[in-house]
Amino acid sequence: MAKGITKRSEDYSRWYLDVIAQADLAEHSSVKGCMVIKPNGYAIWEKIQGQLDKMFKETGHVNAYFPLFIPESLLRKEAEHVEGFAPETAVVTHGGGKLLEEPLVVRPTSETIIWSTYKKWIQSYRDLPILINQWANVVRWEMRTRLFLRTTEFLWQEGHTAHATAAEAEAETRQMLEVYRQFAEEYLAIPVHTGVKTESEKFAGAVHTYCIEAMMQDRRALQAGTSHNLGQNFARAFDVTFQNEDGVSDYVWATSWGVSTRLIGALIMAHSDDNGLIVPPRLAPLPVVVVPIWKSDDEMAAVISHVRELTASWKGKIDFKVDDRNQYRPGFKFNEWEKRGVPIRIEIGPKDIENKQAVIVRRDTGEKISIAQDQVLQVVLQKLQEMQEALFKRALEHRETYSFVVDDLEDFKKRIDEPGGFFWVHWCGAQACETKFQESSKSTIRLIPFDAQKEKGKCIICGSPSQQRVLVAKSY
Amino acid sequence: MAKGITKRSEDYSRWYLDVIAQADLAEHSSVKGCMVIKPNGYAIWEKIQGQLDKMFKETGHVNAYFPLFIPESLLRKEAEHVEGFAPETAVVTHGGGKLLEEPLVVRPTSETIIWSTYKKWIQSYRDLPILINQWANVVRWEMRTRLFLRTTEFLWQEGHTAHATAAEAEAETRQMLEVYRQFAEEYLAIPVHTGVKTESEKFAGAVHTYCIEAMMQDRRALQAGTSHNLGQNFARAFDVTFQNEDGVSDYVWATSWGVSTRLIGALIMAHSDDNGLIVPPRLAPLPVVVVPIWKSDDEMAAVISHVRELTASWKGKIDFKVDDRNQYRPGFKFNEWEKRGVPIRIEIGPKDIENKQAVIVRRDTGEKISIAQDQVLQVVLQKLQEMQEALFKRALEHRETYSFVVDDLEDFKKRIDEPGGFFWVHWCGAQACETKFQESSKSTIRLIPFDAQKEKGKCIICGSPSQQRVLVAKSY
Repeated sequence: MAKGITKRSEDYSRWYLDVIAQADLAEHSSVKGCMVIKPNGYAIWEKIQGQLDKMFKETGHVNAYFPLFIPESLLRKEAEHVEGFAPETAVVTHGGGKLLEEPLVVRPTSETIIWSTYKKWIQSYRDLPILINQWANVVRWEMRTRLFLRTTEFLWQEGHTAHATAAEAEAETRQMLEVYRQFAEEYLAIPVHTGVKTESEKFAGAVHTYCIEAMMQDRRALQAGTSHNLGQNFARAFDVTFQNEDGVSDYVWATSWGVSTRLIGALIMAHSDDNGLIVPPRLAPLPVVVVPIWKSDDEMAAVISHVRELTASWKGKIDFKVDDRNQYRPGFKFNEWEKRGVPIRIEIGPKDIENKQAVIVRRDTGEKISIAQDQVLQVVLQKLQEMQEALFKRALEHRETYSFVVDDLEDFKKRIDEPGGFFWVHWCGAQACETKFQESSKSTIRLIPFDAQKEKGKCIICGSPSQQRVLVAKSY
Repeated sequence: MAKGITKRSEDYSRWYLDVIAQADLAEHSSVKGCMVIKPNGYAIWEKIQGQLDKMFKETGHVNAYFPLFIPESLLRKEAEHVEGFAPETAVVTHGGGKLLEEPLVVRPTSETIIWSTYKKWIQSYRDLPILINQWANVVRWEMRTRLFLRTTEFLWQEGHTAHATAAEAEAETRQMLEVYRQFAEEYLAIPVHTGVKTESEKFAGAVHTYCIEAMMQDRRALQAGTSHNLGQNFARAFDVTFQNEDGVSDYVWATSWGVSTRLIGALIMAHSDDNGLIVPPRLAPLPVVVVPIWKSDDEMAAVISHVRELTASWKGKIDFKVDDRNQYRPGFKFNEWEKRGVPIRIEIGPKDIENKQAVIVRRDTGEKISIAQDQVLQVVLQKLQEMQEALFKRALEHRETYSFVVDDLEDFKKRIDEPGGFFWVHWCGAQACETKFQESSKSTIRLIPFDAQKEKGKCIICGSPSQQRVLVAKSY
């Protein structure tokens, strides 16, 4: 085993925390449930932010910022919403040394503060749509926390849009889910299923919640992003009406959608191995590290100067770093960059210089090739692209291997624990049957797929007629 | 007067708020003292963030994220620090429906939570320096708030660095002040003085606070950024020691430095006029707007298609927008973009097309020129550069006009209210004399300049010997 990293096969949970510790991504803080995101972890978040922000802007959204605090009375305006979130809030009761007249809730999500503001902004159809996103911290009082996956405070983005018609709101909800799907598959290199949450799993206050669900290496599901069609629920709660083109007054239609630092957890759990972190090249803060190799101090200066010369022309074409620290041996450096998930390592020693060669090592496969120095940049760019695709393919194959179509309850129960995975089963739609999954095997209906073909069958729990299969799995 | 904007000469405070409202930058929220930063305002913050983040990274810093909450006992560890900040904190007493064992303070600044963490990270000189920055929201319970300038919650960046020697910490403190000075002058186009705060004005817990001070159009000073040399104060409070190269144990040396959304207030107050916002081109979210002009619907299609053709080759070279809304007349559009501070407006109508010309209008001077269409891009880029420099020059001239070297107390008192400005006076260094400025004229010592020439003189208050002049002004 790599130093300090438990094997996945031994203890998957321990492995996850070891990878985070060895790659120096995050740690628990002295504040219960809150994490410190260390520079290596935050750099991945910056890459995620940068790409998502671009995709949000390309789809017409702008950023804004709303207050951290929500007066308790505002949170209470939407009945389902407050029921869902009130139990997990942090509440400010004192400010400036005095007891507040009204307690302030630290935002668990911002629908209420934002819709109380939109009321002032919207009078007519001409004020619509409003397409706003916010990058922010939110707080949900969690009892059981796990770095990145579930923490009391986390970083996220939350889109909050307002529309003149139900159809527009629905199109927006679907569009943003598609942005998340594309980001997950093309950047995180994680294949996802898309679909609708059941009534009991949907966002508190939504009409429909759409989601992307990914399979981790331990074959559990992870919800990686959600997009909510809020209908007119929040407009009604906050009395936000508008005059439509015909001069008729109606409530405004709403959506909200978000992804969080949880995505870093997904990235770690989907790709990393027993040697440590693996980061998909398109989200790697440092895609390439060059390790010059020398034995004597005499060699050192020559090798470093050769490497500097070779890499001088790479600037602006690729992000890389030359690790010329003298106090560490090459083996130590290889190990360190491996644990940190740098996709490509380039080794250049005196022999390589003599042969006008360099050694290129791919993090995911360990593939090691010697190539001519004048081709290094070109080959590295190609290898990064290959690795991005290979990670996605590997994750997809893993998911396919552990996805099962089952019709027999005993068969399902036998396999949900071992090997585990994604189970496509018929479900009648009754909540009573839904809860049986949880009771019998701690699994849940992850989603009702958008693209499932209609298929007559019988609910795996009660035998009643069913029109299509749903996805059931254990989840994070 | 421009519609909805009070003249500066009539009521400067009202003017400031009118400019913000008409440019749609921000508004008060339903949460006392907290603002909503609207998309137009937030876009300026994104430009500020983008440039500063680049400058921080170029000077070797990395970003990270620390918890929003600070256990009350941590805040109390540094005596001066808690004395300065405790009175203005917001305190969480309940979480998840239960009374907390220990109240959590919403961070007013993060020295305490960060240094309690650095204790775990630092053992040896090899762990140093730590050069971390954080982009975050902070909360200080303010009684009197003003949009952007002073709000209960605000957005900022806070750098927190740890060093092995006093000299390194001092060099870092000075370096970051220099980054702020450069940003203020080259991007905000606001000239600033740099220097040291007096003992009574320094950051609670610092050994020295350095600052940049700018003059607004009403001749008041605005502190636009601070950089603190914290000495070993926080290392002592949190018992953070390290082994130096000689194996000797010592406390770690610290700095912290920050700027906030207050910079948007500075930008507004330094440059805008009675027609609304003026944004320096280098920080303008939209530097150029093109307004096609038509009288009949027949003309419309032709003009718009001509403009689209003309501007097609500009993409990637300049950020611009074509305002082809049909429901508004050109005059309305000119006024709107003027209020919003877009640096350059380009007008193109049927006559211009006939003459192969376009009209370019500069926001700050109102200068209006006709030029050949094939030269538009080149001239616009040049005008943006000119405008950036002109704004700085105008602000500098304004500051020089209202800066006075005074030695007589009566003379000072006569002029501090009208015309007001920056007053360079001799001060003996006694706090008793410092408080007299506040008592007699609500002014304060803004800074003791770094670069002042030594000059023997007499304290303007008490007549005791003084070695150099300090800057006194009324301030925000």
